[in-house]
Amino acid sequence: MRIDIISCVPGLLESFFAHSILKRAQQGGYVEVVLHDIRDYSVNKHRTIDDYAFGGGAGMVLQIEPIARCIRALQAERTYDEVIYLTPDGEQMQQKMVNSLSLKGNLIMLCGHYKGVDQRVRDLFITKEISIGDYVLSGGELAAAVLSDAIIRLLPGVLNDETSALTDSFQDNLLAPPVYSRPADFEGHTVPDILMSGHEAKIEEWRYRQAVQRTRERRPDLLD
Amino acid sequence: MRIDIISCVPGLLESFFAHSILKRAQQGGYVEVVLHDIRDYSVNKHRTIDDYAFGGGAGMVLQIEPIARCIRALQAERTYDEVIYLTPDGEQMQQKMVNSLSLKGNLIMLCGHYKGVDQRVRDLFITKEISIGDYVLSGGELAAAVLSDAIIRLLPGVLNDETSALTDSFQDNLLAPPVYSRPADFEGHTVPDILMSGHEAKIEEWRYRQAVQRTRERRPDLLD
Repeated sequence: MRIDIISCVPGLLESFFAHSILKRAQQGGYVEVVLHDIRDYSVNKHRTIDDYAFGGGAGMVLQIEPIARCIRALQAERTYDEVIYLTPDGEQMQQKMVNSLSLKGNLIMLCGHYKGVDQRVRDLFITKEISIGDYVLSGGELAAAVLSDAIIRLLPGVLNDETSALTDSFQDNLLAPPVYSRPADFEGHTVPDILMSGHEAKIEEWRYRQAVQRTRERRPDLLD
Repeated sequence: MRIDIISCVPGLLESFFAHSILKRAQQGGYVEVVLHDIRDYSVNKHRTIDDYAFGGGAGMVLQIEPIARCIRALQAERTYDEVIYLTPDGEQMQQKMVNSLSLKGNLIMLCGHYKGVDQRVRDLFITKEISIGDYVLSGGELAAAVLSDAIIRLLPGVLNDETSALTDSFQDNLLAPPVYSRPADFEGHTVPDILMSGHEAKIEEWRYRQAVQRTRERRPDLLD
């Protein structure tokens, strides 16, 4: 999989992709992530990429011409399964969508900034609009990082222990059960006896009951 | 406001806080963001901070002792309004929650990683558990960045134009209307005439109707 991220502040994302699982995934050849600066595709010598909104009002708009140039340059080089725009009014990201995107080939992710991109970019170039949640961020960069992280960790071979992702929250419509590690006694606060019992089947049953109970208390909507 | 972020891979967050609005917010003295490495609070010479889960199973657990040391050291220095744990089974983040957190004083944000933190950390130290969405990430770092960004951009003085945040999606339970900028004609795709008319009142009415229509089509749940 190759992910091309188009942004007016690509430097903001550099440290994310240079650490931890995302770094190992790229080093291991499971994914290639390429950051693009919209300014490199500006059509004038001042490298401007934004302007006021027609009709007035606060906030700047990312103009269509530099973005169109960038997307077309990428599409001339290879095929992309989706051209994604990260926006709070997009389709709400959830784990099933992530699972499905993790099976795709190449993805373009366009990050809005300021008041967003010219509507014609969305009409002409975007195949999928995604929101990571019902809140507003200063740009789509963090949203692109969130989406990339969620997708990349599912690519086969990326996680050290392949079973690890399967026991995450949401993969079975249940929240994950509580976890405990050493020490068994922290200032008088001890680990549930069952987890120290060595009875594998009973432990699995306890975890399942805890997961159901936690889901019922916190997110009954997931059980519907 | 001061935000202390506790993580086992704090370097992952560095570029994010060094750019754009979050950089300006710190330089302007509106917020202080301090990253902490859990390893600096490890209780052994190998600087380990994670271990296997009691009861078996895939994935490592962040241990309680280093995290407890770090939180207690911070709390000995100043008062915190909330000690937040970012976790997919937390309360779902939405704009109203962000608005409310932006009025607080100091915040601690703890990032999980691997299978999460020992449950006793949550029982003993955490005052608020927040999820940025129904999907799983490789760690809480991106979630802490998302929450920080959403909060910090609301602090008075941070955005250049104070009216800018008020016209965002969600602040009035409506998605934002489409925006357009130059050129007025892009390869035959033109801007709606009304936006070029100069009739301020009619433009406002058009934007409101577009916002309602977009919300009805994409997120009818917001209109309830």
